[in-house]
Amino acid sequence: MNYYQQHHAEYLEGLKTFLRIPSISTLSEHKPDIKKAAEFVRAELEKAGLQQAQLIEGQGNPLVYAEWLGAPGKPTLLLYGHYDVQPPDPLDEWKSPPFEPAIRNDNIYARGSADDKGQTYILIKAVEGLLKQHGRLPINVKFLIEGEEEVGGEHIESYVATKPARLKSDAAVICDTEMFAPELPTICVGLRGIIYGELVVEGANHDLHSGVYGGAAPNPIQAIAEILSTLKDREGHIRIPGFYDRVVAPSAKERAAWARLPFDEKEYTEKEMGAKALVGEPEIPLFERLWARPTLEVHGIRGGFTGEGAKTVIPARALAKLSLRLVADQRPDEATAQLQKAIAAACPKGVTAEYRPIHSAPPSLVNPDNRYIQAAAEAMKQVFGKETVYIRSGGSIPIVAAFDEFLGIPSVMMGFGLPDDNLHAPNEKLHLPNFFRGIEAVARYLELL
Amino acid sequence: MNYYQQHHAEYLEGLKTFLRIPSISTLSEHKPDIKKAAEFVRAELEKAGLQQAQLIEGQGNPLVYAEWLGAPGKPTLLLYGHYDVQPPDPLDEWKSPPFEPAIRNDNIYARGSADDKGQTYILIKAVEGLLKQHGRLPINVKFLIEGEEEVGGEHIESYVATKPARLKSDAAVICDTEMFAPELPTICVGLRGIIYGELVVEGANHDLHSGVYGGAAPNPIQAIAEILSTLKDREGHIRIPGFYDRVVAPSAKERAAWARLPFDEKEYTEKEMGAKALVGEPEIPLFERLWARPTLEVHGIRGGFTGEGAKTVIPARALAKLSLRLVADQRPDEATAQLQKAIAAACPKGVTAEYRPIHSAPPSLVNPDNRYIQAAAEAMKQVFGKETVYIRSGGSIPIVAAFDEFLGIPSVMMGFGLPDDNLHAPNEKLHLPNFFRGIEAVARYLELL
Repeated sequence: MNYYQQHHAEYLEGLKTFLRIPSISTLSEHKPDIKKAAEFVRAELEKAGLQQAQLIEGQGNPLVYAEWLGAPGKPTLLLYGHYDVQPPDPLDEWKSPPFEPAIRNDNIYARGSADDKGQTYILIKAVEGLLKQHGRLPINVKFLIEGEEEVGGEHIESYVATKPARLKSDAAVICDTEMFAPELPTICVGLRGIIYGELVVEGANHDLHSGVYGGAAPNPIQAIAEILSTLKDREGHIRIPGFYDRVVAPSAKERAAWARLPFDEKEYTEKEMGAKALVGEPEIPLFERLWARPTLEVHGIRGGFTGEGAKTVIPARALAKLSLRLVADQRPDEATAQLQKAIAAACPKGVTAEYRPIHSAPPSLVNPDNRYIQAAAEAMKQVFGKETVYIRSGGSIPIVAAFDEFLGIPSVMMGFGLPDDNLHAPNEKLHLPNFFRGIEAVARYLELL
Repeated sequence: MNYYQQHHAEYLEGLKTFLRIPSISTLSEHKPDIKKAAEFVRAELEKAGLQQAQLIEGQGNPLVYAEWLGAPGKPTLLLYGHYDVQPPDPLDEWKSPPFEPAIRNDNIYARGSADDKGQTYILIKAVEGLLKQHGRLPINVKFLIEGEEEVGGEHIESYVATKPARLKSDAAVICDTEMFAPELPTICVGLRGIIYGELVVEGANHDLHSGVYGGAAPNPIQAIAEILSTLKDREGHIRIPGFYDRVVAPSAKERAAWARLPFDEKEYTEKEMGAKALVGEPEIPLFERLWARPTLEVHGIRGGFTGEGAKTVIPARALAKLSLRLVADQRPDEATAQLQKAIAAACPKGVTAEYRPIHSAPPSLVNPDNRYIQAAAEAMKQVFGKETVYIRSGGSIPIVAAFDEFLGIPSVMMGFGLPDDNLHAPNEKLHLPNFFRGIEAVARYLELL
């Protein structure tokens, strides 16, 4: 048994204490818990032997910072995690209370276990172990742990934008993603970007009676239907002129690797998604559709009368929320302009249609040949005993784009969650073997560098 | 001054008393007011000299019935109106309180003034005047006044269906429509029918994250957009196979008469509708689109996230309310079946789409050469001093179809409202010259028959 294996019980107790703090960032009544969780992280970092452990207060929830810079000439890693969690609703679907960690079948169940307290704790314990064993680290590290990842992360973004000198590093490690399958070491090398906004369509200046005016009055709901079905065809191809121009296709090597990933399509479709069929561009393989192709999705729509029974109104206005997921090398500003132009062109007679941007994030893509990625893959391989796979994620992690833009560094996304961890849902869990091996893998990573 | 002209002050006071009763049928707390309004109508009918004046209680709000059958061998008219009204919301937009009748510029403002207490009162006072002057009527009449027209009229429909003998008549007079323009005597000879229902589209069995599943997951909102834009093209043509097969085109004479109606398109579009442009089948003239062509309209739509900000959900479900307005000789059941088939054909992969009927009414069309229509037109012409015009209405009055189906009689729709009477809206009004002349016109009608 190595040092790390001797400390499992202690790590588990520490994690439980962390998980008991209901640090829900979206609910203002949990402000004291946010403070408590931040202070817990700070104290853990100090106890681990890091220097300058401190809370950085700003306009939002505190950031926690700590550093160890005793290896001049060696690389510096920026270690990122977050201590805030999603609300636990619906409460009655939890088998054990969300803030009373419970262990069943080698999993620890609690809100935040996978997203992201468990993974943040992995980073801390990995560094602590090296410092306790050797009194020093093989490389330099800076911790930057945030407390509002679930609500937009504005504080950390502005901090990264304004303090690039303090955060100067060679690469960032993001411990907030998942493994492709149980015990399959995984590194995520790409994220989709996004533009998100609302489409507001207006017809007459007041609701009209469909008996009196039907046949002559513009209908904003029908207009949204026409716009949406013009923007995307039935096979999932986005019909926005120029939109695909910058899309970089995955390499033949990457495609081949994805084709080798262990995957059961029926299980994925019916069990995981609960769907009747997979849709989307039929000529593109699934993982490429999810990871390397942009999408257009409507997230919500609202207009007119939707109560019980019948009301024969032609509404004055309808609204849809929609997003475009972007892939390398698409640019949010350009995509927004293309979308707005396509909406104007698709807008039927008698109505106005306006797309109003809400937020955006650029896509990111790291070359797997990068030495920081290679070392992480090797460390995971050694600890898990299997070849590391490279995947991408269809989601967006805005901080990755911020690290790229303001610090000019790549992010190494080594995650230890699993696809069935129930992130943002009841019965969130973390697989304990992943937790313990994750600590070892991160420590090994620092040594390999 | 004739008899009717001598009684204007009395008619106005009586109408005000009627309008002060807030007989809102959709709000259960107004049940006592419904009863009060029904009793008011019954007492007025009795006072007018009619026989058998009574409330007919049933599963809904009471019907008011009265008759005068002292002219054997002469025709019998069934006189229809309703004493219930729409809710007055939004209250703060009323210039005077909705249930405190106020007179401004020759109009009486109150909820129900035009729809339909004022017009119901016209029928009562016309008959009263003849009975007071001559002690008898030139023909037979049966009054049937309902109290749930604004909430579906189920009681009267079942009563008409089950008591055809008691209601046996030669024609019905519906005093619940409007004149095409001020002081232009108007008879409505056609109504559109309707089928109304909801379209429910379901994808996965739970909401999915658009980052993780976007590109593979079915999106029910996009699916509704595709279905709606398949069912109706951008020019307003309905693309449901077989749907237009039974549509009867208006006669050349009717088309020519409609083309002569006084009409200012700019005023109609911008002032009345508050719209930027008229839409619909470009090759069909406006009145034909509104009165003699079927429509497909979406009345409401709901799905996914529509709160403030952003949530990147692919919803499991979306719902739309939609209707088809029907014209002679389309049939509700057939149209429903055609719509359901077209929805099934338009339904994209990965989702299910189901149309659930809520209510329906067949279209109606009366031949203007009918003697009951001709006499009504002549009576209105004599009182208003202008040639009567024949129009149709794009709306649906289900009781007209019920009179046709169960009693086998045509309905004479002579209305005294005006297009700007704000039915169902704040500041509903009735033009008092129409009210007073309406009483005379109905009395003249009975004499002419």
